[in-house]
Amino acid sequence: MTSRASRGRRPGAPDTRAEVLAAARTSFAEKGFRGTTIRAVAASAGVDPALVHHYFGSKDDLFLAALEMPVDPRAILAPVVALGPDGAGERLLRTFLSVWDEPEIQVRLLAVARSALGDGGGRLLEDGFIPVVLGPVLGQLVKDRPEVRIPLVASQVLGLIVTRYVLALPPMAQMPAEDVVARIGPVLQHYLTGDLDGSPRIAR
Amino acid sequence: MTSRASRGRRPGAPDTRAEVLAAARTSFAEKGFRGTTIRAVAASAGVDPALVHHYFGSKDDLFLAALEMPVDPRAILAPVVALGPDGAGERLLRTFLSVWDEPEIQVRLLAVARSALGDGGGRLLEDGFIPVVLGPVLGQLVKDRPEVRIPLVASQVLGLIVTRYVLALPPMAQMPAEDVVARIGPVLQHYLTGDLDGSPRIAR
Repeated sequence: MTSRASRGRRPGAPDTRAEVLAAARTSFAEKGFRGTTIRAVAASAGVDPALVHHYFGSKDDLFLAALEMPVDPRAILAPVVALGPDGAGERLLRTFLSVWDEPEIQVRLLAVARSALGDGGGRLLEDGFIPVVLGPVLGQLVKDRPEVRIPLVASQVLGLIVTRYVLALPPMAQMPAEDVVARIGPVLQHYLTGDLDGSPRIAR
Repeated sequence: MTSRASRGRRPGAPDTRAEVLAAARTSFAEKGFRGTTIRAVAASAGVDPALVHHYFGSKDDLFLAALEMPVDPRAILAPVVALGPDGAGERLLRTFLSVWDEPEIQVRLLAVARSALGDGGGRLLEDGFIPVVLGPVLGQLVKDRPEVRIPLVASQVLGLIVTRYVLALPPMAQMPAEDVVARIGPVLQHYLTGDLDGSPRIAR
C-alpha cells in the first residue's frame, strides 16, 4: 500500500489517502465490513472510487489498511496453509510468533489488538477480520465445521495475545517461542482437526 | 463484606469505607499486591488499620474488594478443587460458566475484565489475581510446574472471556455451556495435568 501511495504522489495526495482511510475506518466501524462499499467510502471522502482502488486495492485490502496491520496476515499464513492440516497447529503458532515477537512489528500489532479489544472491536473481528482473514485461511485447515473450529482457534490465540503481549504476564511474555509452540500448538491442532465433542483423547 | 459494612454502620461510615477502598485501589495499582500493606492503606485513608480489617478482612479480601469482584472466586472454586485433578478441566470450566453466564454477575465481571485488560491490568493480574486467587486454587490441581501450567490455563480462560463476553463474538457468545465444556475442557485439563513438552497425544 505504501508503494502505491508513494508512486506518482502529487501535492495533496497524502491527505487524500488519509481522508479515504478515515472514511473507510468510520464506515467499517459504523456499518461493519459487509455494510461498507468502496463506492460509499469514496463518496464520503469526496473522491472517485477508482482512486480508492488505486490506493488500497480491494475492499479486503482497504479493510486491512484501515486496521493498520503492519503485515498482511493472508500472505504470512499462506505457507502454513500450503502444507495442509497435519501439524498445522504448531506451524500456525510458530509463524504467528515469528511475526509478533519482532519488536517493531509487535508495537504496531499491539495497537491493532488494543483497538480490537476496545469498543466496537467485536464488530471489526466478527464482521471483518474473521471472515476476511481467518475464515479463508484457516478454513482450508479445519477438518469440518469451520464455524465452530475457527472461533475456538481465535479464542486461544486471542488469549495468547492478551497474556504474552498486551498484559505481558510472566512467564507467558518470556516463554521461548518453541516452548509456546510445544505447549499451545497441540491445542490449536485439537481445535482445527480434533474430535470436539467428547473424544477422551485428542490427537495432535 | 457488605454485611460487615452495614453492620454497626454509623453516620459517615460508608464514606470511610469508600475512602479506604479508593486508597487500596490506588496502592494496588501503583505498588502492586506485594507492595501494598493494610497499614499504608489505612494511613492513606486517615483511619486505623483495625478499621480496614473490620471492613474488609485480610489483605487478600481487600484486594478482591478493590477489584470489585461480585463473587469470591476462592469460595466458588473450592468444590472444583476438592474433587482433585481428574476431570478438573471440565469442572473448572462448568463452574466458571455457571458464574459468568449469570447476567447480573456477568455485567459486573465484565467491568473487572475490561479494567484488567486496560492500562495497569497486567500488574493487577501478575502481582495480585494470579498469586492470590488462581495460584492457591489451581496450584492444588496441577500435576507439576504450576508456574507454567497456571498461566497456560489463564491464557485460554482469558481468551474465552474476551471472545464470549467482552467482544461477544458469535458463535462463542451463543455456544451452549455444555458445548464450551466439551470443546475447551480437555484443553484446560491438558494444561493442568498433560504432558506439556512433546507428548504426541493429550489425555483428557
